[in-house]
Order: sequence, then structure tokens, then C-alpha cells
Amino acid sequence: MNNRTAEIVSVGTELLLGELVDTNAAWIAGELRRLGYYVYYKTTVGDNRVRLAETIGRAFGRADLVVVSGGLGPTDDDLTREAIADVCGAVPHEHPELLRQLETMFASRGRPMPPGNRKQAWMIPGGRSLENPIGTAPGWWIERDGRTIVAMPGPPHEMKRMWNERVKPDLPKGSSILWDTTLHTIGIGEGNVAEMLAEFTTCANPSVATYARRHGVDVRVAAGAAGMEEARALARPVLAEVERRIGRFVYGRDEDTLAGAIGSMLASAGKTLSVIESVTGGLVADMLTDTPGASEWLKTAVVAYTRAAKEMNGVSAELLDVHGCVAEEIARAMAEAIRQRCGTDWSVATTGVAGPGEAEGKPVGLAFVAVTGPAGTRSMRLGWPGERRQVKERTANGALGLLLRILRGDSEP
Amino acid sequence: MNNRTAEIVSVGTELLLGELVDTNAAWIAGELRRLGYYVYYKTTVGDNRVRLAETIGRAFGRADLVVVSGGLGPTDDDLTREAIADVCGAVPHEHPELLRQLETMFASRGRPMPPGNRKQAWMIPGGRSLENPIGTAPGWWIERDGRTIVAMPGPPHEMKRMWNERVKPDLPKGSSILWDTTLHTIGIGEGNVAEMLAEFTTCANPSVATYARRHGVDVRVAAGAAGMEEARALARPVLAEVERRIGRFVYGRDEDTLAGAIGSMLASAGKTLSVIESVTGGLVADMLTDTPGASEWLKTAVVAYTRAAKEMNGVSAELLDVHGCVAEEIARAMAEAIRQRCGTDWSVATTGVAGPGEAEGKPVGLAFVAVTGPAGTRSMRLGWPGERRQVKERTANGALGLLLRILRGDSEP
Repeated sequence: MNNRTAEIVSVGTELLLGELVDTNAAWIAGELRRLGYYVYYKTTVGDNRVRLAETIGRAFGRADLVVVSGGLGPTDDDLTREAIADVCGAVPHEHPELLRQLETMFASRGRPMPPGNRKQAWMIPGGRSLENPIGTAPGWWIERDGRTIVAMPGPPHEMKRMWNERVKPDLPKGSSILWDTTLHTIGIGEGNVAEMLAEFTTCANPSVATYARRHGVDVRVAAGAAGMEEARALARPVLAEVERRIGRFVYGRDEDTLAGAIGSMLASAGKTLSVIESVTGGLVADMLTDTPGASEWLKTAVVAYTRAAKEMNGVSAELLDVHGCVAEEIARAMAEAIRQRCGTDWSVATTGVAGPGEAEGKPVGLAFVAVTGPAGTRSMRLGWPGERRQVKERTANGALGLLLRILRGDSEP
Repeated sequence: MNNRTAEIVSVGTELLLGELVDTNAAWIAGELRRLGYYVYYKTTVGDNRVRLAETIGRAFGRADLVVVSGGLGPTDDDLTREAIADVCGAVPHEHPELLRQLETMFASRGRPMPPGNRKQAWMIPGGRSLENPIGTAPGWWIERDGRTIVAMPGPPHEMKRMWNERVKPDLPKGSSILWDTTLHTIGIGEGNVAEMLAEFTTCANPSVATYARRHGVDVRVAAGAAGMEEARALARPVLAEVERRIGRFVYGRDEDTLAGAIGSMLASAGKTLSVIESVTGGLVADMLTDTPGASEWLKTAVVAYTRAAKEMNGVSAELLDVHGCVAEEIARAMAEAIRQRCGTDWSVATTGVAGPGEAEGKPVGLAFVAVTGPAGTRSMRLGWPGERRQVKERTANGALGLLLRILRGDSEP
């Protein structure tokens, strides 16, 4: 069996300074693995033409495919094009059609194109450019002696879109194709999931692995075979058994999100939602509106961060006098008030202490979430200490998780 | 000047599968930079003795210090010790004192030591071990011809503790200490920044580099010298000139955020803010409430995602009939209405098309932001196609950028 090999080269001095974690390389590695490529090395190198050419050259000398990300910007520091040209012994030229596209992109924004951006229209003989519909840096696809270099821009959105639309469809597949899927769960800990799936997690093919993530526990089922259909068939019985055992905790797969699952349920039932947030400060609404079509079911969201804003949104002053702003009763009152005011079928509310300091003598991380619906109000207490952003994220996930479980009719919150 | 150079080698096949992001390498890179080491390469390599030895050997041949993390476990897959021995042409032996410590550690947990763990007591001539108080894998410190290899375990807690207690105190400092700062800008593209700073971005020390980030363009100014004060003094005139040229676009440095800069200005002036968001769907509020103390100045934030919600918040039906929801006039009306309703000093509004499909015949990415204050309303058009999340992020940054520039009294938006 002839395994295809690939290497990943991440370009950027900032990646060597410890300021940024390189998430592109891990993402690309996962993609390559699913396409059946064996990745033996990932290298990060700074914005230095000699070191860059040396690194790309070495990778090109030992792998079938080299995937480079970064260094395609318009500045003197962006040297990926120069380095690839050096490796290929070629001289870049300005490509008229690319230049025209760049100028059009700037013109559509009503801005003149800075001269530096001209190098983004460069190409070398035998190479072709990869369209970047959401940025100014086109990618490069270079072939030499049956080997390929693909260069993509560093910003993750641009890189991923280019990969999905322009790179992946054209790459030859490796001889062992991996099929995998990830199930997302809510309301169960990693230890319990692992226990429920014990005899599968030690098998190699198909493999079952659990991961504790911010949004809940993920379960990944994977199988490798000569073709995608064979791999999928190999995984199928194991996946079915995994789903049988943990299905009631599963809310989605792969790209699915908690907000997306909620949105689908509300949209298909023709129901509406309102949101009132204190501690999460807009994050619940932000997560919900990442779902296309959210305006169909998300009627209103309010950030009632202060006591006055809570009163203005219908929480009684007396209740606030008794409990303060951070209390289960307040979360419930907030959810009930916003639902009534907006006339929605459902509502969700959050309150808590984001930190860095305690509030009302209550500790950082203490939070309450509440959901009101046709059958009344349910609420939940959360309390893990953490950084401000962590507290916001955990509380927002807790609120959406409670809403989803109630929407699904789970008996326990 | 003799700059000390370092390379980072991360070991582990799992890091090449795309399931894990390598956070160790970024952390170590930051530490090395502060100690005055120049890091030119980071390499990730799998659990393969030949590839591992080749990678460590190459790094050892060109850097003063090689920092390896991972591959020190007790299994057959853990090959870092073997690879370092290969690089040094040495044969590992079992170190009696290390073996005794390992056995004691297992005994204290009431467990016999599995035979596999014996290799964790290996050492090579001339090397010394690094204590690991919270795991079974001691580290290695190897010196040859004035160069050093440090190998540490992969689990981040163990690695960081070993680094802080056993590695960092003994490392020679680089002869050149790096001082650096990053300026955050808003309202200007990378090409334009690079043009304004052209003669600096090609200098090596002090160095000036630009980076396109989600929140805007960053400019990093760095200088290396024998001591921190000298480095800072070397950077000072260049930094001053950079600030003179692009200062009106700079809103903060290093850990500062756009929301934090706005919060500081509002808090120190005793002024208040209200927010009304359509296209950004809560993201503006979320960014603002990431700033501690936001409840002092953020009075209310509303997500008015639907036409009905805009009307409910005071935008006239006639205006919506004429312009639809996505129009500069609507952003302005939203900002004016929320400011009046909440009685705040300032208000900010967003409307636009997040996608994936167009709306009202208007393209994805078209967005308008408006700010109302004591002197009236200012607004801005944005229009850069992109993924839904990107559109939200760019529009939120555009809204906060406009607000900040007006708060600072900049004449141009």
C-alpha cells in the first residue's frame, strides 16, 4: 500500500514569539488525516526568506504534499511566495488577471489599492492561484515532479474556506481513507461517558475516543479503510451501539452547535425565544445569532447588566432588595418577565458573578440560569471558579444546555 | 553581539493527528523570548525514533538550546530518551538513584512499579535528570560542546512546573534581551500601515512588524540589547516615530482591547453607554462586558434582530418601510432611539447582512454602524464579504472602533 505523506509548514515570526497558538496546523492535520495522508512533521518558521526556503525545500524533498499557511500578506515580511519561488528556482511575475481581481476588490470597498498589495498578484511559471473570496491573499498551488506545494493565507477563516473550496477537492486521496464523526453531548461528564463506552475505547479500528470540551463531552468514532464507503461501513455498527448507549445526551454531530440544535427545534415547531442576560453580557445572544436564520425564532435579547436594567425589564425592586442581583429567584424572575414582555413561547435568563472580584459577597463563578416556557420555569445553579471569560462561556453553555434539554422533553434538567 | 538561539521540538503522534493543539510550544516560546533566546524553528514530530533523532539532531546542530517536550512516558511509543542518546552517540543506562525514587513514588501510592517505567530511570553519560514532583517522568538536561538539550514531559502541568523550578533558573541568559510592545490599531488596513512605516519594517533591530488580526492591524516594535533597559532605550525613538505616524489609529498596547479602551474613557469621564444590535446579534455587548467593571458604564444592550424588535425599540415603521432593515438611516435611527430611551450619554447601533444568504436584495457583509452622542449621530458603511462569524466580528469591531474614535475626538471617523 502506497501511503501518501504530507508536511505542514506554518509561517510567521509571531508564531515563534509565544503570542499566538497555531490552531491552523492542527486543523490542517485533521483534514489531511481524513484524506488518508500521513503527516510526519509540522514545522513553524519565522518571516525569514532563507529559513523559510530551507524548511519548505526540505519538506518538499521528503513529502508528497507540503501545506504552507501564512506569509501571503502584502508586506515586506510576507515571504512565502519568494521562498517557494526560491525552492522551485523560479522568478515570480505579476499575473494580470489576479491584479485586476485585487484592484476590483479594493475598488468595491471604495479604497485605492496600496502598492504593497501588488505582490499578492504574483505567480510563478507552472503554478496556479487559489481564489480567496474573503481576503486579498490568493493561494498558490505548485506542482513539480508529482509533488505538490499548497500555500494558503494565515487568517483561519480565509485558510479554511480556501482549503474546503479550492484545495481539498483537487487533492489526490491517500490509500487508507479515514471516516470519522464526532458526537456532541450535554449533561454528562467525561468519566461517565467513558464508563458507558468502556469496551470500545480500547479498540483501534474502529476507534472510539472521548474529549472534554468547553461545550460538553465529545465522542469521536473513526474507522480507516481503502475507501470512504468501506471505512464508513466499518464504523457503522460501533457508531450505532455508541448512539444507543449515550444517545439521550447527544445534541448534534461534527459542525453542529448547541445554538444550532436549539434553533432547529424552535424553527421546526414554529416557536419563539427571548433572552435576558446579566453575567453572560450578550454571549448567549451572540451564540444564538451565529445560527443562520436566527431572526425567525429569536425575537429579542436584552443585556440587563445593571440592577436598574433588570428593573426596567420587569424584575421587581422588592425581589432585588431581598436577594440582590445574583440569585436563583432573580434568574427565574428575569426569564418570566422577558417572556411576558416579548410574548415569546420560551425565554432564557442568566445572572452571576463574572469577576475578577466577588459581588454582593458572592464568589466569582457563581451563576444561575433559568428557562421559562409554556409549562413554567426551570432553573439551575452553576459554580466553578475561573477567569471572567470562562465564567461567561460556562454560564452561556449552561443556559443553552438547560433550554435544549427542556425543549427535548428530558425529564431531568 | 552573540545572540543565543533556541529551537522547540514537540514530540507525539497525537499532535500530528489534528486532535490536539500544541499549547506547550507557544508557552515555551514566550518563556524563551523573555530570557533573550531567539527561536527560529518549532518542529512537531511523531513517536518515531529515526525521525525524532533526525529532528533533534538538526536542531542541536544549529541552536544553542533545544527544548524538547513529550515522549518521556513509560511506553514503547515514548522514544525521546532513545533519540537523544542516538544524537549524542551514547547508550542509556539505568540510574540507580532515579530508579529508587521511581519505586518510592509508586510505593507511596501503594502500587507496584510496572516494568515499563524502568526506562524513566535511564540516563546517558554527562547528563543529569530534572526532578518531576508531580509525575513519573523525570526530565533530562544534556550538555555537549557548550550546547544544551532539555527534555521535559508533555503534560502541560508537569512541563511548566519542571521548567519553572528546574530549567529556567539554570539556563544562561541570552546576551541579548528582547524588549517588545504591540500597538493595536483600528480603522486602517495592513497595506496602509506598512506604507506609513515602510523604512522601519525592513530594519532588524529595532524591528517593526505588522500583523492583520481580527480586531485590526497590530504593529509590534521590538529591540534586543544586553539588558532590558538598554533594549527599551534602543526601541524608544523608533516607537516614538511609529506612534507619531500611526498614533491616531492606535487604541491600545499589548493586553489592551478595544472594549477596554472604550470602558476606560467612559468610566473616567463618568459617562454611560447603551447598545442596540441587529447584525452583530449580541457580540458588541459580549465584547464590552469582557471588560471588568462594565456595569459602571454599560446601561443597557438590546439585540433587536427582527424588524418588530427594531420597532419595539423606537425605530419608526415608516423609516423601515422606506429603507428596509439594512440601511445607514436605520442604524442612525436605532442609535438615536436607544440613547433617548435609556437616557445614556452615548449609544451605538449595528445593522447589516450576516449571511449566509443576502437579505432585502443586499449582499452578505454589507453593514452599517452608528454612534449617537451629545453632538449628534455619526455613521459608517462596511462592506467586505465573508463568513457569518467574520461579518459579525468585523461589524462589531467597526462599531466599537467608530465609537472609540468619536470618544477620542478624532475628526475623521
